[in-house]
Amino acid sequence: MKDTAMLPTIDDLRAAQKRIAADVVRTPVLHSEALDRAVAGRVFVKAECLQLTGAFKVRGAYNRLRQFSPAQTRGGVVTWSSGNHGQAIAAAAKRLGMPAMILMPSDSVRAKVELTRSHGADIAFFNRETDDSNAIGTDLAERRGATIVPPANDPDVIAGQGTAALEMLSQIQDLGASRPDMLLVPCGSGGLTAGYALAFRELCPEAELFAVEPEQFDDTGRSLVAGTRLSNAVRKGSICDALLAKTPAPLTFAVNSACGVKGLTITDQEALNAIAFAFRHLKVVLEPGGAAALAAVLSKKVSMKGKTVAVVCSGGNVDPALFAKAIAEL
Amino acid sequence: MKDTAMLPTIDDLRAAQKRIAADVVRTPVLHSEALDRAVAGRVFVKAECLQLTGAFKVRGAYNRLRQFSPAQTRGGVVTWSSGNHGQAIAAAAKRLGMPAMILMPSDSVRAKVELTRSHGADIAFFNRETDDSNAIGTDLAERRGATIVPPANDPDVIAGQGTAALEMLSQIQDLGASRPDMLLVPCGSGGLTAGYALAFRELCPEAELFAVEPEQFDDTGRSLVAGTRLSNAVRKGSICDALLAKTPAPLTFAVNSACGVKGLTITDQEALNAIAFAFRHLKVVLEPGGAAALAAVLSKKVSMKGKTVAVVCSGGNVDPALFAKAIAEL
Repeated sequence: MKDTAMLPTIDDLRAAQKRIAADVVRTPVLHSEALDRAVAGRVFVKAECLQLTGAFKVRGAYNRLRQFSPAQTRGGVVTWSSGNHGQAIAAAAKRLGMPAMILMPSDSVRAKVELTRSHGADIAFFNRETDDSNAIGTDLAERRGATIVPPANDPDVIAGQGTAALEMLSQIQDLGASRPDMLLVPCGSGGLTAGYALAFRELCPEAELFAVEPEQFDDTGRSLVAGTRLSNAVRKGSICDALLAKTPAPLTFAVNSACGVKGLTITDQEALNAIAFAFRHLKVVLEPGGAAALAAVLSKKVSMKGKTVAVVCSGGNVDPALFAKAIAEL
Repeated sequence: MKDTAMLPTIDDLRAAQKRIAADVVRTPVLHSEALDRAVAGRVFVKAECLQLTGAFKVRGAYNRLRQFSPAQTRGGVVTWSSGNHGQAIAAAAKRLGMPAMILMPSDSVRAKVELTRSHGADIAFFNRETDDSNAIGTDLAERRGATIVPPANDPDVIAGQGTAALEMLSQIQDLGASRPDMLLVPCGSGGLTAGYALAFRELCPEAELFAVEPEQFDDTGRSLVAGTRLSNAVRKGSICDALLAKTPAPLTFAVNSACGVKGLTITDQEALNAIAFAFRHLKVVLEPGGAAALAAVLSKKVSMKGKTVAVVCSGGNVDPALFAKAIAEL
């Protein structure tokens, strides 16, 4: 059993990058005059919506599952997820030839349930407000002889997500830009934020790091200020379904604290506006949670004047009706 | 005056690639399990919708405008375009510090008019059915002391578009795949097709080359069969606004004939289905014309079983209402 209290390092990210190189897409870094003009700075967008399964999550999934023992592979994997992590685990498990069971909230976005099912995983539903997904998952894993791969609280998962940051810093350099002055990342349980924070603290130490959360779901932001893990008062009520964690994971909180990450929040309307902007100017499809950091940029939650800004757009698995609503306002 | 009867060669494409390297985006090549499964082959998608201005056209625009003399630069540029070429010329002219006048059909997609205007070009409108855009453009250019850069009938424009093909073949190789057995490209006046055909004939000579056009607008396909340039009977009536050329350009027809290109056609509904597929599985925004080649793939206009297939998605400047209509059927 791996010691989950051990924080991953930049070396773990580099090892992960080699390990999963053939499994994942080196997603492009996009830029646009319209975006630069909007913030009077220079903005680079890591388009993880173009990742396999439509979100960054396959990075962590492959990095963890590729380290399963033969016995673990036979037993397969269990996880819980509002969609993107589950879909990634399902896709990676299928390719690596192991069974997968995904627990999903009963109010999951339909597109995500269908995409997860398309990878051949077993799916069970839980009530986001009343059930303890962690406990149900642990019970299921025991009964199936399976190994749990949590969405965020795992050093290999965090290291896998961090591979996107290594790529992004190298891509920004290739584009001839200076090192980013700031980074904005959508934040649910904090795994993606932690992976990026580890890479930036090492390779771009002067950058300000921002975890962007929906209003009322700013558990990470408030926890970082308080210096201890706090929970949200509500469990639903934001369209950013991918970012509705109850509380930061212990491991991601430890990493994000150590790296000096700060929090920002966005509203549903700001997320919709960012989806519409990406449709019009970047030509990528974003889901509300995946657009959270771009929303913070477009809403100028911090001053970006003259700055080089790294923004992560983390996923694009959105229901057509919600997307149509977002672009109808153009 | 450049001799437009002279066909561009692979060396012109390579020179163009160096010339415009800092001006354009090296767009990604996307792939997806769902797409491979749909055709029982291996499909690679060159996502030119992620190019600056949302379409491949900046490649040809920069390659031509960067070769203007100082006197030409002072006089500026005139062109006619349903949108994507005009927007590209406007953006490139602005960056290179020269005036630009764009003639657009009066029934142009609103999104394209607005995006063209945002680059600061002068815009005039003509009637697609009754006016001769070529004659109006020539007259305007004379009065302004400007140089015409036509959308397709120019060796530098064709060579510029062909840089996307050079990138794509190298990217497919980097992904560890075998050389494409076939290529499908959306086709209007044939400039993009000609650029790709030149690259593929040289670097991947055994590949079958297909120009994909909307039904009733298959002037290139019919001309290639007839061995002479034919015109379409109609001037409007397809949602693929970017592909409504009346007839192949002399130069593109000469290139596409010499390279053995064949024609395929798609319906409006097939284009809408391809837009929806790209939304769901590739997470990119396509316009109907930009989705034409993908539509031909998904509708299996040719057998792709076991083949490696290169598909070009050429643009993403689509009106929100039409896009919403396409994805509502999911």
